[in-house]
Amino acid sequence: MKVVISKKTHNRHLYKGEGDFHTKEGIIFESQFEGNPSSVLNNKEREHIIFDAQNMDKLAKIKRGPQIITPKDLGYIISRTFTGKNSKIVEAGGGSGAATLFFANIAKVVHTYEIREDHTEIIQKNLDMFNIDNVTLQTGDLSEHIEDEKDIDLLFLDMPEPVPVLEKDIAGLSSGKFICCYLPSISQIQELTDFVKENSHKYYLEEICETQLREWKVWDRVARPMHRKDNDFTAFLVFLRKL
Amino acid sequence: MKVVISKKTHNRHLYKGEGDFHTKEGIIFESQFEGNPSSVLNNKEREHIIFDAQNMDKLAKIKRGPQIITPKDLGYIISRTFTGKNSKIVEAGGGSGAATLFFANIAKVVHTYEIREDHTEIIQKNLDMFNIDNVTLQTGDLSEHIEDEKDIDLLFLDMPEPVPVLEKDIAGLSSGKFICCYLPSISQIQELTDFVKENSHKYYLEEICETQLREWKVWDRVARPMHRKDNDFTAFLVFLRKL
Amino acid sequence: MKVVISKKTHNRHLYKGEGDFHTKEGIIFESQFEGNPSSVLNNKEREHIIFDAQNMDKLAKIKRGPQIITPKDLGYIISRTFTGKNSKIVEAGGGSGAATLFFANIAKVVHTYEIREDHTEIIQKNLDMFNIDNVTLQTGDLSEHIEDEKDIDLLFLDMPEPVPVLEKDIAGLSSGKFICCYLPSISQIQELTDFVKENSHKYYLEEICETQLREWKVWDRVARPMHRKDNDFTAFLVFLRKL
Amino acid sequence: MKVVISKKTHNRHLYKGEGDFHTKEGIIFESQFEGNPSSVLNNKEREHIIFDAQNMDKLAKIKRGPQIITPKDLGYIISRTFTGKNSKIVEAGGGSGAATLFFANIAKVVHTYEIREDHTEIIQKNLDMFNIDNVTLQTGDLSEHIEDEKDIDLLFLDMPEPVPVLEKDIAGLSSGKFICCYLPSISQIQELTDFVKENSHKYYLEEICETQLREWKVWDRVARPMHRKDNDFTAFLVFLRKL
Repeated sequence: MKVVISKKTHNRHLYKGEGDFHTKEGIIFESQFEGNPSSVLNNKEREHIIFDAQNMDKLAKIKRGPQIITPKDLGYIISRTFTGKNSKIVEAGGGSGAATLFFANIAKVVHTYEIREDHTEIIQKNLDMFNIDNVTLQTGDLSEHIEDEKDIDLLFLDMPEPVPVLEKDIAGLSSGKFICCYLPSISQIQELTDFVKENSHKYYLEEICETQLREWKVWDRVARPMHRKDNDFTAFLVFLRKL
Repeated sequence: MKVVISKKTHNRHLYKGEGDFHTKEGIIFESQFEGNPSSVLNNKEREHIIFDAQNMDKLAKIKRGPQIITPKDLGYIISRTFTGKNSKIVEAGGGSGAATLFFANIAKVVHTYEIREDHTEIIQKNLDMFNIDNVTLQTGDLSEHIEDEKDIDLLFLDMPEPVPVLEKDIAGLSSGKFICCYLPSISQIQELTDFVKENSHKYYLEEICETQLREWKVWDRVARPMHRKDNDFTAFLVFLRKL
Repeated sequence: MKVVISKKTHNRHLYKGEGDFHTKEGIIFESQFEGNPSSVLNNKEREHIIFDAQNMDKLAKIKRGPQIITPKDLGYIISRTFTGKNSKIVEAGGGSGAATLFFANIAKVVHTYEIREDHTEIIQKNLDMFNIDNVTLQTGDLSEHIEDEKDIDLLFLDMPEPVPVLEKDIAGLSSGKFICCYLPSISQIQELTDFVKENSHKYYLEEICETQLREWKVWDRVARPMHRKDNDFTAFLVFLRKL
Repeated sequence: MKVVISKKTHNRHLYKGEGDFHTKEGIIFESQFEGNPSSVLNNKEREHIIFDAQNMDKLAKIKRGPQIITPKDLGYIISRTFTGKNSKIVEAGGGSGAATLFFANIAKVVHTYEIREDHTEIIQKNLDMFNIDNVTLQTGDLSEHIEDEKDIDLLFLDMPEPVPVLEKDIAGLSSGKFICCYLPSISQIQELTDFVKENSHKYYLEEICETQLREWKVWDRVARPMHRKDNDFTAFLVFLRKL
């Protein structure tokens, strides 16, 4: 699979590797891909850059259901908790599986709970596409299963009301292990921190934050920030430690 | 090892697990740690929260040399490139090893080049402290070694002048693989993008960005951003793709 | 003139005060505006809020030419330099006159130079619409006129290359008076600060900054940042002092 | 009065115009200020830049009481509401008078209410220092006086609980006129918007925002953001319109 980018418009495509490739800007013929050139002219003489698609490029093609957690947030969750290839992640609220795919690529094992069956199906398709074999995916309410989970390093809760999960007796999280809640509204954080205050023998509030990404254009005589994208704000991250 | 946090001052300590524990706020006696309590009163009746130290907590103790790359940047480098447990990272400019430790915890193998011998020694001590065995650490100039490296998934260049490395024939980076340069000044980015422009058959400029982190205080009747920390701005990230 | 806002869609209109008022959402009849109600139902039973238009609302209707300087920038220029009703502003690069109108509303007198005649005409129409009588508007290159200007408190340069103006002998700016340059690209700032460095007996560089505005939605159960608008980044501001 | 800035340390001073001038870096003799030079060497051969102090410079010297509203906020309040030299501002919560001085320099007349007598005294001293004659300053609770105020263009409420003022019958604010509340916590905004929701026949919520300022260093080979200052976050601004 190849990434194909028009130099004029910066339009970006995935070419599956068979047949002529038609875009709005013209045609690149199958034969032109032979020998893996790094650029070709299409039939309208427009230059296109070509390189091998990596998993990151294929991710852009996954079937999307609900809103997606962005790389800026996913990366910080991993780095803030020092999660790695020996870690076990339990996750609720899988959405389209973007987070699940990302976690699966890093952690030893991921247990994912998603309450809606239609979402579970989307996630499963996406996992299959990437041949992921270290994810256990289950349709259901995590608050009913959390007490069965063992040896959790990171509990990631992407759900509007994480309190019903945190009210359970989470023996699978030993002392000092991490919980990260992903909440778009300050009101939800207020509910969560009120709960933590009343349960200060069980949880320690370590950090509430938001990550931001600013893209820049630096080329020739220009060096300036680019306009923000629509998904500039996604959600707040709340990091708790189990006591 | 235990994390000990004063509820009054929020001062945070690491307790090594032996002997009485003296802080500016008083003493916690060794016997008080028995049975792994989640909170104790010190001899001045001040409550302290206690939980098991995780690797993230131990990282805060590593011997620091030069400036450190922050989690907000490290996380985004991983998530933006979909680097994971099957990836090989080659890294130049190891600094104190904070990035190296983080990469080693995620990637399959990390090859690190650091030009200053005193820095290499700091990094090695830090690697030993965490029992890391998937890092090859070398004192030297990466531009003299890059042509020997094979099957690189991510080339991370934390050095003021990355061009001498990029001028080499980097056969170890196959088509579409990632290069990330970490540069604090727009002037350095201008030099880099000028180079990319002249070498557009070899590299594609995919993204220039900076990550930002904003911490919040949400507790009781308060919900407001916290004041920024000193390391609010660290550096820009430039992501290139090999052609 | 009235501002009319649909409660359902938040669409915002200006009603000139005569005749029935037709919008995509239906009709509000002229008789409904009698007695200055603060809300009415249109003929489709949709509630609309009504209040008297202020100058700020009328500004949204001015004939636009080139890009507009935003309130976040204009406000900071005024507050950073303590410009007020006794001040004289000389301005180059009038654009559509948004800055000119704003400055005229605050300063004692404004002298505006705009190089393009078509822009000058737009500005003049906008000034007339607001009955502004303290602006002198001239088509021309400020660098040819700056030496004739006297008793300037603030020199505002909204032009890509401010150096030709600053190269002149600006006797009209006495010691300590302010120059503000409005520049969208770091490259332009580099040229400017290179010039200032070579002319450090004439100018002192006091501040380079950008202003940012973040809007929030706080209503009912929601409290979160809104998505950024397109004009999130506008330009950098460079403040100089005359020596 | 002169601003004196050391080129080496960037330390900034105000010289009152009489006597030799002693700083930590050495002495500048009174005779050296004769002829209004733009730079001098002190007795330790360190170069100092000199220019005439403007009101903005003198502001930095005003007697400070409570926290100060920053220029980034003050400027936006003025520009967002198109307040100018014909406007009347009524203000509660004068603090040290920084906002009052700023408003007085722009508006026709300012009526200021401050509940603490010690703060009123600070404000009065600061007004006297700048020879301000268009401010009426009163110690008292604005909610007891707001019904007597007439022809208000902008009502600025810098107080933790603005609702008691807004509950009054504010006939002095005609349809469409502006109210701006300055509130540091989201919780306070939630209380305010709950009130506005219940009083939607009297007030329209137009904007909730925060302003941000980012300073840059662009000099020689460096072009990067500066570290944020302590007062990076000040408060949120809530703009209402009277119906």
